[in-house]
Amino acid sequence: MVNFAMIEEARKVLEGVARRTPLDPAPKIGKNVYIKAENLQMTGAFKLRGAYNKMYSLTKEEAARGVIACSAGNHAQGIAYSAAKLGIEAVICMPAGAPISKVEATRAYGANVVLVPGVYDDAAAEAARLQKEKGYTFAHPFDDPYVIAGQGTIGLEILEQLPDVEQIVVPIGGGGLISGVALAVKTRKPGCRIIGVQAAEAASMYTSHLNGQAVELSSVSTIADGIAVKRPGELTFQLCEKYVDEIVTVSEEEIACAMLQLLEGQKTVAEGAGAASVAAAMFGKIDTTKRKTVCLVSGGNVDVTTLSRVITKGLSKSGRIVEITTKISDKPGSLLQLLQIVADTGANIVNVSHAREAYDSDVGACIVTMVLETRDHAHIREIREQLTAREYYLVKR
Amino acid sequence: MVNFAMIEEARKVLEGVARRTPLDPAPKIGKNVYIKAENLQMTGAFKLRGAYNKMYSLTKEEAARGVIACSAGNHAQGIAYSAAKLGIEAVICMPAGAPISKVEATRAYGANVVLVPGVYDDAAAEAARLQKEKGYTFAHPFDDPYVIAGQGTIGLEILEQLPDVEQIVVPIGGGGLISGVALAVKTRKPGCRIIGVQAAEAASMYTSHLNGQAVELSSVSTIADGIAVKRPGELTFQLCEKYVDEIVTVSEEEIACAMLQLLEGQKTVAEGAGAASVAAAMFGKIDTTKRKTVCLVSGGNVDVTTLSRVITKGLSKSGRIVEITTKISDKPGSLLQLLQIVADTGANIVNVSHAREAYDSDVGACIVTMVLETRDHAHIREIREQLTAREYYLVKR
Repeated sequence: MVNFAMIEEARKVLEGVARRTPLDPAPKIGKNVYIKAENLQMTGAFKLRGAYNKMYSLTKEEAARGVIACSAGNHAQGIAYSAAKLGIEAVICMPAGAPISKVEATRAYGANVVLVPGVYDDAAAEAARLQKEKGYTFAHPFDDPYVIAGQGTIGLEILEQLPDVEQIVVPIGGGGLISGVALAVKTRKPGCRIIGVQAAEAASMYTSHLNGQAVELSSVSTIADGIAVKRPGELTFQLCEKYVDEIVTVSEEEIACAMLQLLEGQKTVAEGAGAASVAAAMFGKIDTTKRKTVCLVSGGNVDVTTLSRVITKGLSKSGRIVEITTKISDKPGSLLQLLQIVADTGANIVNVSHAREAYDSDVGACIVTMVLETRDHAHIREIREQLTAREYYLVKR
Repeated sequence: MVNFAMIEEARKVLEGVARRTPLDPAPKIGKNVYIKAENLQMTGAFKLRGAYNKMYSLTKEEAARGVIACSAGNHAQGIAYSAAKLGIEAVICMPAGAPISKVEATRAYGANVVLVPGVYDDAAAEAARLQKEKGYTFAHPFDDPYVIAGQGTIGLEILEQLPDVEQIVVPIGGGGLISGVALAVKTRKPGCRIIGVQAAEAASMYTSHLNGQAVELSSVSTIADGIAVKRPGELTFQLCEKYVDEIVTVSEEEIACAMLQLLEGQKTVAEGAGAASVAAAMFGKIDTTKRKTVCLVSGGNVDVTTLSRVITKGLSKSGRIVEITTKISDKPGSLLQLLQIVADTGANIVNVSHAREAYDSDVGACIVTMVLETRDHAHIREIREQLTAREYYLVKR
């Protein structure tokens, strides 16, 4: 079992290893909103805290056998970094489809990466097999007292950095982060609310809470890959039931918008899981008007190609980019005429494609698809109205 | 003229208005490299410091007439924000093609934005016309003693935050930022080197220095739009000649790579101008091995659609994405065979286009263009060799 003293102990263990990350106001997100930036942690995520604390706790004999872990992301980097610091051998099974940047980052810390064909579950099975065969010590990503105690050190830091905090919003995957933070905060300041956030497409803790026991979802799929966990831990489930006040969920679009807001407004890079807490505040899933609220941004390790897609999704949701498809007649000047109408509304053209040979187009007609940069949803409505008024047929998407 | 006392004065004026931005080590960029994060300044760029200090210095009568400025970016936001704080009317001429997000941000601070058809020069001409007609007070973006003194406060902060700094790298557009920083630092610590960075495609101060006088370039074009200035100021040119040790230039690709490195490694968003100083350190334009070096990241206001393009450019330059075009025969299984070879090298496929009807293709052949996610340049060479060895014809790009 894990207790408060273990978190205080972890605090000492992590001194000089984990960074005390900044906690800053984020007025553009909400008047009472603050951000605890674990995306600026070493290795780019909070996972390092738990991983290091766990590996530090190993007996000499356990450490000598080496550590094995399974992860497609932040846990891998946390273990690899800690292993290098502590001089312990680390083997990390990663699904073969993991982003190359994450595989390379893990290798760069000196870990032995085993790429396993298939998905996360296949990599986990291979890790279990290797552990038996070679006798490695297994490092669980969340359901472990030392891991939870390590993450709990964030709770202590928040209370020091913002003593009058009234509410802390924490992303939940397996539940290790929120378990540690909640144990720390509820011990020191029981009146402070702890709210968990899950991606609606991976709401395993939320569902488990409704069922009164840890349950497994058949599938999870979210851009917040750091919290795409099918089943919470047993220990973390118990701790959540005891200490967490409420769990809310956020949609994929809401997560994308929060990532975009953090990029543009805060000039900071958050991964999907990290932005989930901010999404909850932005989209009214929690009340931030009355309580001084800290959103824990858990990590920033997002693949930049994913980031590009997220930017587009966020722009689209906030009405700042739109794709409009229409038909024009196949004669000189038609395209020019169309573009003039669009330009007059003040929209910037990002992309235009003009195709004469689309299979479903009338003879003598062309399909034009325009991607436009717009101000907001009202601006998009205005453009559509202008085009419809001039008898352009708008293809519905 | 501007002097050190004016910078100390500006320091007091800016208290509670400009943020003391963080200065942190950036070991991924270089062992001795630190970043001064003015991208985290209010309004997203350093410009606020000079703009506010200038507007604060106006006489009651000048302030009552209102202020006019011309800018497509950070100066606009700095003026607008300061005007709101000081209760002064602000009119800002912006070229009509400016990114919508920048126009909206300026409006959001309450300024009266005039969109002028054409480019920056047209907006500047309109601002001059309006100034004469309406009697507004003109707020120059850089060639002004109070503006320079405001920017100089950054120099004082750097000396406090890292007293043993030996070298400071500063982006140059019109020269206001580096003039202020150099004056402050050389007064307090003459042994500290001050190095200016310009985009090679907008090297007006660099060229002026070579010519011994301020000269005007016929055109400038760079993703670092914040430093795309055709002609340095007279005052700033004199200050640079006196205080700046060296000016170096960086290419567009180098700037894109630096932006990408800041996003991935530092989890922070820099605009092109802001990343130029980091590019100089990354690409050996300055020696950071022997001297404790601060790269001044001047701003973070990059349009997110630009950011998407920059990500792609940076990935390409660092060998992490590649486009390969080849021919295959137009029969079942050909595409599959090609993709198998690629998959065996460990590359991830981002995009594939397969066109039968390309005008220049042989009858019976198809053109395939693949966008691949790769590890590095060596990985790309390996893929090309594998394909060439199997007699695929690779179209040169």
